[in-house]
Amino acid sequence: MSGKSAHAGGGFGTTRIEALADGIFAVAMTLLVLDVKLPNGEHFGTSGALLDRLLSLEHTFVIYFISFVVLGMFWVGHHAHFHYIRYVDHTLLWINLLFLFGITSVPFATDLLGDHNGIRLPYFYYGGKLLVLAALLIAQIAYLRRHPELALPSLTADVARRIVARTAVFATIPLLSMAAVFYNTRLALYLYLLLPVVHFLPGRVDMLDPDNAAADENVAPK
Amino acid sequence: MSGKSAHAGGGFGTTRIEALADGIFAVAMTLLVLDVKLPNGEHFGTSGALLDRLLSLEHTFVIYFISFVVLGMFWVGHHAHFHYIRYVDHTLLWINLLFLFGITSVPFATDLLGDHNGIRLPYFYYGGKLLVLAALLIAQIAYLRRHPELALPSLTADVARRIVARTAVFATIPLLSMAAVFYNTRLALYLYLLLPVVHFLPGRVDMLDPDNAAADENVAPK
Amino acid sequence: MSGKSAHAGGGFGTTRIEALADGIFAVAMTLLVLDVKLPNGEHFGTSGALLDRLLSLEHTFVIYFISFVVLGMFWVGHHAHFHYIRYVDHTLLWINLLFLFGITSVPFATDLLGDHNGIRLPYFYYGGKLLVLAALLIAQIAYLRRHPELALPSLTADVARRIVARTAVFATIPLLSMAAVFYNTRLALYLYLLLPVVHFLPGRVDMLDPDNAAADENVAPK
Amino acid sequence: MSGKSAHAGGGFGTTRIEALADGIFAVAMTLLVLDVKLPNGEHFGTSGALLDRLLSLEHTFVIYFISFVVLGMFWVGHHAHFHYIRYVDHTLLWINLLFLFGITSVPFATDLLGDHNGIRLPYFYYGGKLLVLAALLIAQIAYLRRHPELALPSLTADVARRIVARTAVFATIPLLSMAAVFYNTRLALYLYLLLPVVHFLPGRVDMLDPDNAAADENVAPK
Repeated sequence: MSGKSAHAGGGFGTTRIEALADGIFAVAMTLLVLDVKLPNGEHFGTSGALLDRLLSLEHTFVIYFISFVVLGMFWVGHHAHFHYIRYVDHTLLWINLLFLFGITSVPFATDLLGDHNGIRLPYFYYGGKLLVLAALLIAQIAYLRRHPELALPSLTADVARRIVARTAVFATIPLLSMAAVFYNTRLALYLYLLLPVVHFLPGRVDMLDPDNAAADENVAPK
Repeated sequence: MSGKSAHAGGGFGTTRIEALADGIFAVAMTLLVLDVKLPNGEHFGTSGALLDRLLSLEHTFVIYFISFVVLGMFWVGHHAHFHYIRYVDHTLLWINLLFLFGITSVPFATDLLGDHNGIRLPYFYYGGKLLVLAALLIAQIAYLRRHPELALPSLTADVARRIVARTAVFATIPLLSMAAVFYNTRLALYLYLLLPVVHFLPGRVDMLDPDNAAADENVAPK
Repeated sequence: MSGKSAHAGGGFGTTRIEALADGIFAVAMTLLVLDVKLPNGEHFGTSGALLDRLLSLEHTFVIYFISFVVLGMFWVGHHAHFHYIRYVDHTLLWINLLFLFGITSVPFATDLLGDHNGIRLPYFYYGGKLLVLAALLIAQIAYLRRHPELALPSLTADVARRIVARTAVFATIPLLSMAAVFYNTRLALYLYLLLPVVHFLPGRVDMLDPDNAAADENVAPK
Repeated sequence: MSGKSAHAGGGFGTTRIEALADGIFAVAMTLLVLDVKLPNGEHFGTSGALLDRLLSLEHTFVIYFISFVVLGMFWVGHHAHFHYIRYVDHTLLWINLLFLFGITSVPFATDLLGDHNGIRLPYFYYGGKLLVLAALLIAQIAYLRRHPELALPSLTADVARRIVARTAVFATIPLLSMAAVFYNTRLALYLYLLLPVVHFLPGRVDMLDPDNAAADENVAPK
C-alpha cells in the first residue's frame, strides 16, 4: 500500500518471474541429461561390449555434467539476485527474458560441444554463452543500483560490488577455457570442473550471497 | 468468507491455473529452443565448416528467438490479466484452456516457419495463431467486464479499455507481417523484431500494466 | 498444532503433491502437442502443397486437441479433489502416483490413436485409460469418505456423491466411444468432442465443484 | 529476524530449491513414460497385430513403471528431508545438485535397461544409481546432524536414525536385484516391484515420515 508511490514508474512483483525461471531451469536441466543417449537401434550382446560403448561416451558424460553444474550455478545466481528485487520494470523484464533465452539454449551449446569436441569453435560458443549470461547478471545489478526504487534497501553499494566480483570470478573459468583451447581441447573442457571448486573457496567467491538467508527469511517468508 | 455470496454462481481460485500456466509456458519456451539442432550425424572437421553451417541456420535462430519473445509477452499478458481475476468460472476456465492449447502449439508453428520460410502459408499460420491468442485475451477481458463478480474491483472500464488497446497494438505486428509476406518473406519475419520495440514505446502500449504492481503487492503478496 | 492429534495415523500436507501434479500436467499437456510434427526432411515448394499436407493431418490435430481437453479436465478434477484433502497418507500417496502415472501415459495413448486411427484397438486402449483414471478419482473419494481424518469436514456425503456422479457422467463418453468404434472409428473419435459440451450442461454434471471456490478461498488462501 | 544470528555461517531458504526439485521430478517422471514409443513408421493393419506388438513391449512397460515408482519414492524422500531443513549452505546445495543430477539421469538408466534387458550391466548401472541416490540422502541427514544450525530442532537423533534406517531398507531392493541378476535377469527386474510393498510394511520402513505432517502444517502452512 505504502509502496504504491515508491514505484510510480511501473513494474510488477517478482513471484511469477521466479516461478517461470524455476520452470525453465528445471526443464533445461532435465532435458540436458536426456540427450545422453545411445544411438537408437544400437544393441549389445554382452556387458563388456556395452561397457566399452558407455566408456567411449565419457567425454559426453563430462560435458553434460558440467552443463548441469553451470545451470545450477546460474540458477543460484538468479535466485540470489531476486532477493534484492522489489519490482520488475520493463528493462528488468527484458533482461530476464534474454537471460532465460540464454539458459534455454545451453543444451544446444552442450550438444554442439558433445558432438564436436575435437574442434575449437564449440568451446568459444559455449564459453561465450556463459560470458553473456554472466554479463546479463551484472547488467541487472548495475541497473538495480541506478534504479533504487526497484531494489530492496539491502542491495547496498557494498553488496552490489561483492555480487559483481563473484560473477567476475565465475567468468574467469570460461575465459581460461577459451584460452586453453589453443593448447588442448581436453584441458579446455576439464577446466570447467573448477567451477564447483571456486564455489568453495574461502571468501566465498561465488554467486551465492550468505546475507540472503536473512533477506529470504524476512522478505519472502512464504 | 464474506466473498462466499459474491460468487454464488460458482468458480474457483486462480492459484493453480497460474501454476499450470507458468509450467506450460516454461516447458514451451524451453522446448522451443531445443528444436534448434544440427541434424544428427552431421559432423564437421574444422571450425570453419561448423561456423558456415551455424551461420546458415541464422533464419532458424531468428524465428526461435522471436517465438521466445512472443511467448514471453503472452506470459506477461496472461500474468497481468490474472491480477484482475477473482474467481474462474467454467467459461473462463475454457478460455484459459484454449489459450494454453494455443501456447503449446506455438513450437509447431515455429517449426513450420523455420522449415518453410520461403513460402507464404507458414507466415499466415504463425500470424493467425498470434491473432487468435490475442483475441482470446480480449475475450477474457470482455467476459470479465460482463461478469464483475468474477473480477476484482480494480478492473475498471478504463483499465479494461487500456488492456484491450494494448493487445490491439500488439496485434498490429502479425497483421503487418501477414501483409508484408506478399512483398518479401524476409521482411515479414523481421517485422516481428518490432515486438520488443513496441513494448518500450512511450505511453507503454504493451500488455504489461504498471498499475498491477500495486495490485500484485496488495492482492497476492504471497 | 491442534491438528496434530487429528492425524496421528500419519500422512503429510498437500502442497507439494499439488506442485508435482501441476508440473506433470504442464509437461504432459505441452509435450502432447509437440508430437504433432511434419516428418523431418519433408519440404514443400508451394503453400498449396503444404496446405494439403496440413489438412491431411486433420485427424491428428483433432486427437491431440481432445487429449489436451481430457488432460485439462482431469487436472480440474484432481484440483477439485485436493480442496477436500487435509493430509495424504500412504494409500492416498499411491493412488496419486498411479493417477499421475496414468496421466503421463496419455501422450502414448494419443500417439497410438493418431498413428493407427483405422483399427479398433487404440480406441479401447485410449478409452480404457480414461476409465481407469476416472476410477482412481472415484477410489480416492471413497477412501477419503472411509478415512474422514484425512478429509476436510466440507467433504460431506452429499458432496462426495455429487463428485462421484459427475465423474460417472464424464466416464460415459469413453464408454460411448468404445461402443461406437464397432460402427465407425471416425464417430468414436468425434464423440470425445462432447466432453466440453457435457461440462456446460445445466446442473453442471462435471468434475468441477462450484462449492470449492469458498473452500479455496478459506482453506488455501495462497 | 531473530534467526539471523542462528545461521551466521551463511545459507539460504529452502523454498526455491524445493520448487526446482519439484520441477525436475515432474519433467523426469513425464519424459520417462514418453520414451515408451513404437518405432516411428511402424504401422499395423489389424488390432491383433498391434496387440501382439504392444504385448512384446511388456518388459519395457514394467521397467518404466518401476522407474516412475522409484522417482516417486525419491521425491517423497527428498520432500521429507526438507521438512527438517532450515537453511541450505554450500555443501547442502551441492548435495542437492548432485542428487538432482542423479534424478535427471534415471531416464537414461531406464532406457539402457529397457533396451538391453538380456545382459547384466544395465542392472548394475540402474541399481548402482539408486544406491548412490540413497547414499546422497543419507549423507544429507548426516551433514544436518553435524550442522544443527541448518536443521530444525525436530530433527532429533532419533528421527535421523529412523530416516537412515528407512533409506537403508529401501536400498536393500537394488542390492537384492543386483545379486539376483547372476541368477536370472527377469527376477532382477521384478524384484523392484517389491518397492511399493516395502512402503506398506508395518513399522512403515519407508522414506515417508509420519511426524512430518505436523512439521508441514506448522512450519510451512502456506
